[in-house]
Amino acid sequence: MKKQLKGHLLLIGDELLSGRIGDSNGQVVAKLFREAGILLTGITTIPDQVDIMKKEFLAKWSENDVVVTSGGIGPTRDDLTKEVLATAFNKRIIPRDDVAASVTDNYLRFGREWTPTLNQYHHFPEDFIALKNAKGLAPGLAYLNLGKLICALPGVPRELAVMMEEEVLPLITKNLVLNESKDYGLTCRTFGIPEERIFNQLVPDLWDRLLKVGSVASYPQIVGVDIVVTVHGTENDRDKAYAEMKKIILSTPLVAHIWQWGNTSLPEFVLECAREKKLTIALAESCTGGLTASRLTDISGSSHSFLGSIVCYANEVKQQVLGVRSETLEKHGAVSEECAREMVLGLKQSLKADLNVSFTGIAGPTGGSSEKPVGTVCFGVSCGGNTFTEKHLFPGDRVRLKQRFSEYGLLLMLKAMEII
Amino acid sequence: MKKQLKGHLLLIGDELLSGRIGDSNGQVVAKLFREAGILLTGITTIPDQVDIMKKEFLAKWSENDVVVTSGGIGPTRDDLTKEVLATAFNKRIIPRDDVAASVTDNYLRFGREWTPTLNQYHHFPEDFIALKNAKGLAPGLAYLNLGKLICALPGVPRELAVMMEEEVLPLITKNLVLNESKDYGLTCRTFGIPEERIFNQLVPDLWDRLLKVGSVASYPQIVGVDIVVTVHGTENDRDKAYAEMKKIILSTPLVAHIWQWGNTSLPEFVLECAREKKLTIALAESCTGGLTASRLTDISGSSHSFLGSIVCYANEVKQQVLGVRSETLEKHGAVSEECAREMVLGLKQSLKADLNVSFTGIAGPTGGSSEKPVGTVCFGVSCGGNTFTEKHLFPGDRVRLKQRFSEYGLLLMLKAMEII
Repeated sequence: MKKQLKGHLLLIGDELLSGRIGDSNGQVVAKLFREAGILLTGITTIPDQVDIMKKEFLAKWSENDVVVTSGGIGPTRDDLTKEVLATAFNKRIIPRDDVAASVTDNYLRFGREWTPTLNQYHHFPEDFIALKNAKGLAPGLAYLNLGKLICALPGVPRELAVMMEEEVLPLITKNLVLNESKDYGLTCRTFGIPEERIFNQLVPDLWDRLLKVGSVASYPQIVGVDIVVTVHGTENDRDKAYAEMKKIILSTPLVAHIWQWGNTSLPEFVLECAREKKLTIALAESCTGGLTASRLTDISGSSHSFLGSIVCYANEVKQQVLGVRSETLEKHGAVSEECAREMVLGLKQSLKADLNVSFTGIAGPTGGSSEKPVGTVCFGVSCGGNTFTEKHLFPGDRVRLKQRFSEYGLLLMLKAMEII
Repeated sequence: MKKQLKGHLLLIGDELLSGRIGDSNGQVVAKLFREAGILLTGITTIPDQVDIMKKEFLAKWSENDVVVTSGGIGPTRDDLTKEVLATAFNKRIIPRDDVAASVTDNYLRFGREWTPTLNQYHHFPEDFIALKNAKGLAPGLAYLNLGKLICALPGVPRELAVMMEEEVLPLITKNLVLNESKDYGLTCRTFGIPEERIFNQLVPDLWDRLLKVGSVASYPQIVGVDIVVTVHGTENDRDKAYAEMKKIILSTPLVAHIWQWGNTSLPEFVLECAREKKLTIALAESCTGGLTASRLTDISGSSHSFLGSIVCYANEVKQQVLGVRSETLEKHGAVSEECAREMVLGLKQSLKADLNVSFTGIAGPTGGSSEKPVGTVCFGVSCGGNTFTEKHLFPGDRVRLKQRFSEYGLLLMLKAMEII
């Protein structure tokens, strides 16, 4: 067996250490490394300081086969990565025509002209490879030596993601020996039972039994828990392990709580099921304020099934657009199964979708009462001739509750489509 | 001047290095450290491996005054932090009644009973302090020695955030010497001009002039650029520096591009302005699919001004709910200023809000043409007697374009309210 490549990610930037922005590049690089069979040994965030950057570049280079850095290659003065890399690897920075040509292309893509007076992008370390930046202006840097690779990418997430896939991974595949076996995470997604109850009460020996298949982990989600068994091997090993994992779990009472075998997100899964069943979808969202519609429309192709959502935050909108009766609001309040029912029936009549869901609840922090505390939510579901309502209470703060309400409404769509 | 405390954050978990989940705790801890005047020297992500964890705990402890770890204190077997901390600091793990009492409280808050058979939460290192977990079940751990502090918190973001504020920062304030001067980031938020043009063309000496006030950084946002000057000092120093910064920028042509001095998010700023001007808000969202409504309703108190949004993804919804004419759709298409105008006028008539904005565009990746490429968007705005439309072209992929469309629509609300 070939040895597994080791990789490290260095995130560079004072803005990450001041909390001004959060990092999202770590997850992208980690996922691509895992899929490529590279072991990510760690992620290290460091400030824009020449001495620390140089020390970390050389330390991580000595301990790994591949080092990726993110940040510090832009046009402003706190962008130091290029200079520090050149110093660390004893390379002069020189004006390079090949880099100037690549930068000119980048600018043309945005309909702009590049001239050397605009910035120093074409000043580049000798012996370094310029990486194409398909989504931005600044070229990335790569240096290959003694079977090792260091790549400097922009901190801008959309630029980094494309450069990882189109530039860095091909360089690795071409120049470094890659392991044919990989880590595979096999996932069983559950709902309706907390993590602790699964492993301590419902199936106390589940963890031990799954350990015979691979390493085990469990991840609480917005609603529900993912159980993941990770195996290292070929695709064939993966398939065999997944079959074993399914056999174990399907023989336990956890079977009643599974909504998916796999890693598809819930909005995507709902759209896949609706498309397969040729159903159109419409929503009436009060407490979720458009979140569910936004999550569905994040997915390309959602227009195939998704018609729209009436975000009826104010009661007047519930009445005017959905025809909720004022008696219902007076007698039961907006957060009631009665109101949720009228919302979903009004929605069905107005948008004429096949699968309709309404959301009305209290996301807080104000608006709760002892009878209807913050976290109370009512759903109305109408699909074909089948109409039902549900009332639930979830924990969490405002943003978390919006997510939980939205997630649960999507699970109810699976229920209406008889998937779960 | 007292010395500034140094801190480090260790993120523990294989799931972070496999890309299964992304980290959001880094930003929370970084921000709280900055506000407390603690210098965050770095953030390090490590796997769930006993030897690496022990090595890093001791290394970061020796180099810093405060170490915070996140992850690995839950009930499952890959939760190793407690055991490794006890070993690293030579403490025995013993059953502790005080910890059992605290765990019992945590369970009661969720309406559940805790017994020692459920888990080992009450087995705790001697001489360690148990930190209250107000949002979860597992207690955090803290160890104070020789004027230094190490705290182990859960990886769950909402639990960590509350414990940082309610447990860790008070421990620091009480036991470690804190510096009275802090870092302050002074922000000027701009729109309508790219970063490079600001510093290389519009005001080439801006960076140098601002450097006399403090350290300078510039951060491209979804739409627009934030210019941030960071100063270290007292609140008085901060106020003086902010006045200087404003004086410098307000004397340049950049003044026409400022939408805010400060750090308030755009949705929050829009709601503040609307509330001050006593205006209600309604939206008609096609391409943004409810994203703008969801961002507004993430903010507590949004119900004061925000009535609702018609998410009219399908053309039928534009016609049925908003009264867009089929001739308009046939002649100009859904992505046209004509359609945006009919959408916003239909919206105004239907929901009767004071300030109305419509969004119709092409988020891609499909649906573009040479005449209307992906990224084309039309807005309709109607406020009082003033109705106007705008057409723009933005770069980006689907999710980014939704964000850009949404952000620009919010800027148009500021324009309609005559804030910018």
